[in-house]
Amino acid sequence: MSRGRFITFEGTEGVGKSTQLATARQALEDAGKAVLVTREPGGTPMAEAIRELLLSPRDEAVNELTELLLMFAARAQHLHGSILPALEQGTWVLCDRFTDATYAYQGGGRGVPQEQIAMLEQLVQGEVRPDHVILLDAPVEVGMARARSRSAPDRFEREQAVFFQRIRECYLQRAEQQPSRYHVVDAGQPLDEVSRRVSGFIATLLA
Amino acid sequence: MSRGRFITFEGTEGVGKSTQLATARQALEDAGKAVLVTREPGGTPMAEAIRELLLSPRDEAVNELTELLLMFAARAQHLHGSILPALEQGTWVLCDRFTDATYAYQGGGRGVPQEQIAMLEQLVQGEVRPDHVILLDAPVEVGMARARSRSAPDRFEREQAVFFQRIRECYLQRAEQQPSRYHVVDAGQPLDEVSRRVSGFIATLLA
Ligand SMILES: Nc1ncnc2c1ncn2[C@@H]1O[C@H](COP(=O)(O)OP(=O)(O)OP(=O)(O)O)[C@@H](O)[C@H]1O
Ligand SMILES: Nc1ncnc2c1ncn2[C@@H]1O[C@H](COP(=O)(O)OP(=O)(O)OP(=O)(O)O)[C@@H](O)[C@H]1O
Ligand SMILES: [Mg+2]
Ligand SMILES: [Mg+2]
Repeated sequence: MSRGRFITFEGTEGVGKSTQLATARQALEDAGKAVLVTREPGGTPMAEAIRELLLSPRDEAVNELTELLLMFAARAQHLHGSILPALEQGTWVLCDRFTDATYAYQGGGRGVPQEQIAMLEQLVQGEVRPDHVILLDAPVEVGMARARSRSAPDRFEREQAVFFQRIRECYLQRAEQQPSRYHVVDAGQPLDEVSRRVSGFIATLLA
Repeated sequence: MSRGRFITFEGTEGVGKSTQLATARQALEDAGKAVLVTREPGGTPMAEAIRELLLSPRDEAVNELTELLLMFAARAQHLHGSILPALEQGTWVLCDRFTDATYAYQGGGRGVPQEQIAMLEQLVQGEVRPDHVILLDAPVEVGMARARSRSAPDRFEREQAVFFQRIRECYLQRAEQQPSRYHVVDAGQPLDEVSRRVSGFIATLLA
């Protein structure tokens, strides 16, 4: 049995990651693949508890290194306890955000040096990287307008537009540097069109 | 105003760390010093929430790297948000466990390579180290017998004696390697005698 593929969905708030993850899942299940749908931070009970710590707004200022280390603590648990065992069983893993989000949010957004992130990536992941990153790209305001209609903002969603602007730029820069791993989709288009492109990309992977 | 001293209390379960920390606090307060008494993992609301995650027994197997990264996430928050500001104000900081416990428990106990711990120590602490480590040393059974009389065992206290034996050896080895920073006290002696030695050591620091 062949190893499953590890596909992650990235982009700023509200661009359509969760929506397109569902589109991809459908396309894969229609093709008879076993699929694990998961998210970061989170994906196991302990990692979800860490997510809760990370996302809850709090009075105490959260140190940037604390945030970074909590992200990788959750990731170690998720990757070794859930993602890698699934891939080894031939299951395709679709994950809502992964380490590219750490480079974008903690690196681009908060200003944590890329080398510190790379060091923790190496510690936790060794050579493991997502096989494909689907980057849903749209102007920050487009995603924010889509997201605004939902629940109360979490600790990240409370940041200013300029924070998300830096994140978008960081994602685009990474996509440019690693074109074979990144698949950029214009997420500013109507939902049907975005879904058509994501399904099309999945079809090329299955071919 | 001069910088406060950073003193940590280390040793296996139940050897008397909390008891001797209270003895040292009294000696310092009697000498007119401002004292912050704190503990790891913990010491701020967010770091205490991470402590709770670390110590609660759970069904899910906890990955060793998750445990290690959570320890340092709590430490970053505690050190930068509480310990360093106190030291800069001239307050003496007495901390129940610190990074030496990570070397002993995650390194000696769980088998995490020392280099990985050293890398995270450097990331979170830079050049900051405790000025003095008071190592309360006693045979593992002595501390376990003292601790057993208390509350339900946490996730660490459920480990076998051999786990704590490795931890004791790791502590003693570190004390041998860094004699100027470690002060080893025989904690197997009667309480009065141990307290007398700890107070005596504090007196030499004040002299
Ligand atoms: N291309 C699109 N055009 C218009 N609306 C869209 C489009 N894609 C998604 N939406 C809508 O925008 C909202 C946000 O989408 P979704 O929850 O998938 O985004 P997300 O990237 O997962 O957000 P978050 O970052 O908050 O998790 C949803 O209401 C969704 O139906
Ligand atoms: N030298 C001693 N002789 C006898 N009993 C002692 C001595 N030191 C401490 N004790 C008792 O042993 C028990 C454990 O002490 P303490 O709580 O200070 O240990 P600890 O190292 O902080 O434990 P833990 O690792 O669980 O935090 C307490 O009931 C304390 O009164
Ligand atoms: Mg989403
Ligand atoms: Mg104690």
